Order: sequence, then structure tokens, then C-alpha cells
Amino acid sequence: MRIARVMFQEAIWIGLVNPLESSIQLIAEQQASFDPTIAFIENYIDKPTPDITGKVVSFSDVTFLPPIEKPSKNVICVGKNYIEHAKEFSGSGYDSSASDKNDVIPDAPIMFSKAPGSMVGAYEDVLVPWDLSSEIDYEAELGVIIGRGGRSIPEQEAYEHVFGYTIINDITARDLQSRHKQWLLGKSIDTFCPIGPWIVTADELDPENLQLNCWVNGERRQHANTSDLIFNIPNIIATASASMALSPGDIIATGTPVGVGIGFTPPCFLKSGDVVKVEISNIGVIENTIV
Amino acid sequence: MRIARVMFQEAIWIGLVNPLESSIQLIAEQQASFDPTIAFIENYIDKPTPDITGKVVSFSDVTFLPPIEKPSKNVICVGKNYIEHAKEFSGSGYDSSASDKNDVIPDAPIMFSKAPGSMVGAYEDVLVPWDLSSEIDYEAELGVIIGRGGRSIPEQEAYEHVFGYTIINDITARDLQSRHKQWLLGKSIDTFCPIGPWIVTADELDPENLQLNCWVNGERRQHANTSDLIFNIPNIIATASASMALSPGDIIATGTPVGVGIGFTPPCFLKSGDVVKVEISNIGVIENTIV
Repeated sequence: MRIARVMFQEAIWIGLVNPLESSIQLIAEQQASFDPTIAFIENYIDKPTPDITGKVVSFSDVTFLPPIEKPSKNVICVGKNYIEHAKEFSGSGYDSSASDKNDVIPDAPIMFSKAPGSMVGAYEDVLVPWDLSSEIDYEAELGVIIGRGGRSIPEQEAYEHVFGYTIINDITARDLQSRHKQWLLGKSIDTFCPIGPWIVTADELDPENLQLNCWVNGERRQHANTSDLIFNIPNIIATASASMALSPGDIIATGTPVGVGIGFTPPCFLKSGDVVKVEISNIGVIENTIV
Repeated sequence: MRIARVMFQEAIWIGLVNPLESSIQLIAEQQASFDPTIAFIENYIDKPTPDITGKVVSFSDVTFLPPIEKPSKNVICVGKNYIEHAKEFSGSGYDSSASDKNDVIPDAPIMFSKAPGSMVGAYEDVLVPWDLSSEIDYEAELGVIIGRGGRSIPEQEAYEHVFGYTIINDITARDLQSRHKQWLLGKSIDTFCPIGPWIVTADELDPENLQLNCWVNGERRQHANTSDLIFNIPNIIATASASMALSPGDIIATGTPVGVGIGFTPPCFLKSGDVVKVEISNIGVIENTIV
């Protein structure tokens, strides 16, 4: 199943996506202070073959929104989780997490967060506050959506806690990331987390063998396979949940591969008008314009 | 006004605190997926002299809960925000944010976050996963509660966006803080954010002249005045909101002064049974047992 959250005729709905027909069956309308996707996930845990009824509308009649609006906590992110990216980042001069030049490949997952307000839909604009930052970069990532919550989840049970997968572009203000040492501010700027276009449920794909590609203005900058993650999804879930109870609808960005802007000499930062497209096999595409 | 969120006879209420009478007037009962404190704050912005009616109960009849349950984002925290603490932390060997030994006093606020699930009430236990961490430390801090939300708030208007103040103990697993480079995991362990006992509205105190004290088992370890913050409250609000829109009920922990456990040689980590008490003048006291 592919579950999207969309705007249709001034109301917000979640719907079941039919990618072959480019249509969406609208399942439930969002009410005030109620996240319909999280409610759907909570029901799905008990009944993974839900009865779905509702009007079918075309992709062209909706606007894709972040699949989840109000996760219980900030988006959890993993840093330096592909070897070649860890090397390019450590060599870039922007890595405030490295204590010395030999500190390249992390011994334990580096985890930080993006505020939920940074999320925007799959085709919405990324609005850069250019007076605050001039060093804007892209980071294409596989996103994991938690189903059943839990604390201290063992690695061997981790996949039982996954509802599905999505695409995330972890847009980053490199100057703020470096200046503030901890990465929250450089990562959490409003609109700096394009996500979507939908969640593919876990039964539909092998998360350890997905092709990830990222293009800037049509030029391919990143291509990798999720099999190359340093810390794999079970390790990430076990590590995060050892500290924090995870809840249905929590979002984890698993890290970006080599090819980001600061990996170039000189760095290739994004500028107004650039279009960044991220594709992950078996999930889909998100494409956002830098404004 | 002092606003608390309490458990009373199996239900959750927000109430108006009368500290002289040690009583609470119950204002509104919490409904499912509805945070009554945030609703109160939103109403207060428009009408700062609310009509308050409700039953009066004694402190002894209630359990104090975190004043806010579901902020829009993780608790925003500032690191190394008192000079003498910045020195003790940088000298401790635990500071993964310093690129070298001369990098002691930050040039810009270091901001990170604690997941909302880490919050516990003013007198609840801190439950340490001792198999995960053996280096548990305290950090007494002034907490700021956002009233009117906003993005890119100028420093000179920052106090107009403050609803009130509270007490926070930013309990930290130093080993995880160091191991994972970014501080999210070492800071976000469930129950590692005692907060309360209530919010004192901004009209009742001068946040730039509050005495802060922290005792471990009756021994005073921290004492400072909020006038010594390196980055003051307007600067913190301006810096955070330059990246992220702030929302009513958002929580900011402003940083801890000198005297934490890793400032001692050898470090004085907390152990099971220790009692940590934090007092801030004009607000009150929180006291939590390490379990």
C-alpha cells in the first residue's frame, strides 16, 4: 500500500495511492489536532488489511503534503551513515562532529533531529532565508516510518516496528550547521525537509536494497544503494529506541550518500531556482525548487 | 499566575496554582490528543486576564505533571551558555562540540534538542537504563515557555513572545553524549527531563535576575544568576526563530551553570538513590530521585 496525505478542495485527507492510475482514493479527512496518518498507522498495526472506501481523485486534483504532520517528536536523523559521504564531509571543513582529521567513520550512529515544522510536501518549494544562510545543500535519504512503538527494541525485532518507507531530502544550511556546532538549527529551517510523496508499506519492498538517486537541475549528483548504510535500519532503530520510546508515525532519516554540495571543490551550494529531484526505487520521486 | 498540569483522581487537569495556600484551582480537563496548557496559552495571548472558575484542591491531592505534554517540537536546549560551565565542560574530555582545546566559549548559541517523551513531572523519578549508561549528570536550567508564536523574531520583540518560565533539569548521559557526537541520544532518554512544577507567567518575574541553585543529596553543586547567561533570552529566541517558527507552548532550556558532575576530578556521576533538587527564585523547586 501507498499512503499519502493530500490537500483536496481545501480539505486535508489521507488516501490510498494507485501509482499506475495516478489516482488516490480518499480514506479519511483530517480533523483539528488529529493526524489522520498516525491514526491510520495505529489501526494498521492491529488490522493490516483495512477496509478502504472513498472517492477516487486524480493526482492532478491534489497537492501532496508531508505524509505525517505531527510526529510525536522531531524527525530523527542519522549523520555520516555512508562511508564515502563520511569521508567527503570530514574533508570538507564543515564537520563540527569530528574531534580530529582521523575521526572520519563514526563508531556509533550520529543522531540529531529536524523540527517537524521543517517538513514540506514532495513538490513544494524550499524557501531559503538567504540573509541567514548562503550555503544550502541537499541530502537525499531513505525515510523510515515507525509503526508499532516501543522502547529498547532489539535489532532482530526492529523491522516488526516499521510501518513503511518514504523519501526525504535533508536540506542543510552548512554555515549554520558548522557555526552552531550542534546541527539542529542548520537542519530545522522551515521547509528544509521535503518528504513524500507517500509512505510505501514495509511489505512492498526490501529496504536493504533500494537504489537512491539525486539530481540537481538534471545533473546526477548522488547515486547509491541502501545496502551501503554503515549502520543499517535495525541498528538505527535499536540505538534510537534504547534512549527514546518510539511512537507510531515517528520518522527516521537514515543518512545520505556521497555527492552532496560540500563534497565538491569548491563546494556546489544550491541557489535560487535550482531544482532538486530525489528518486528511490520502489518508492517514487520528490522534486523541489529552491526559492 | 502559576499554571500547572496535574493528575487529580485519574484525570489530567490544568490549574491555577496558589503557592501560599498550597492549592490548585482546576481549570480545564485534558481531552484526548488535546494539550490543555497549549490551549490556555493560545487563549491567554488574546485575553491575559482569563475568567477562571473551578474546584480548589490541595497539592497533596495531585501529582504534578510536565506543564506541557505535547509541544510542537522537541524541547530546544542551549549548550555551554554560562562561561564557567563552558570551561568545565570543555576541560572535561566529554565535549564533542569543540574542534580544539581553545574552542571553549561559543561564538554562537549551541542548540540541540530533547525529545518530548523525556519530560517528567517535578517530583517524579528519573529512570536510568544503567545497562546503556553509567555516566549520568544533572544540569539545572531556567526554562522559557513560548506564548505567541513567530518566525524571525527580532531580539527587541522577543519578550513579547514569552508566556512564562519554569524549571528544567537537563539530565544527561555523558557517555552517550560523547559517543554519538550529536547530543540527541544522550539528552533524550525517557524521564531525563524533569520540568515544572508549574509555569510562572512572564509578568511575575525578571528572567534576567533569577537565582538558580542545584543540590545533590543536600550538597549544593550549582548556584548562579541568570544574568550570567552568555546568550540571553532575546538572543536565544531570535536565533532559534531565525531557523524555526516557534509555536505556543514550545519550550526552551537556556543552559546550565558551572558545577555539573563532569566538572569534578574525578567526575561525580549520579547513582541510584541520589536526589537532585533544583530551585529557581520566584519559580519554585523540583526534586527528583535517580532510580
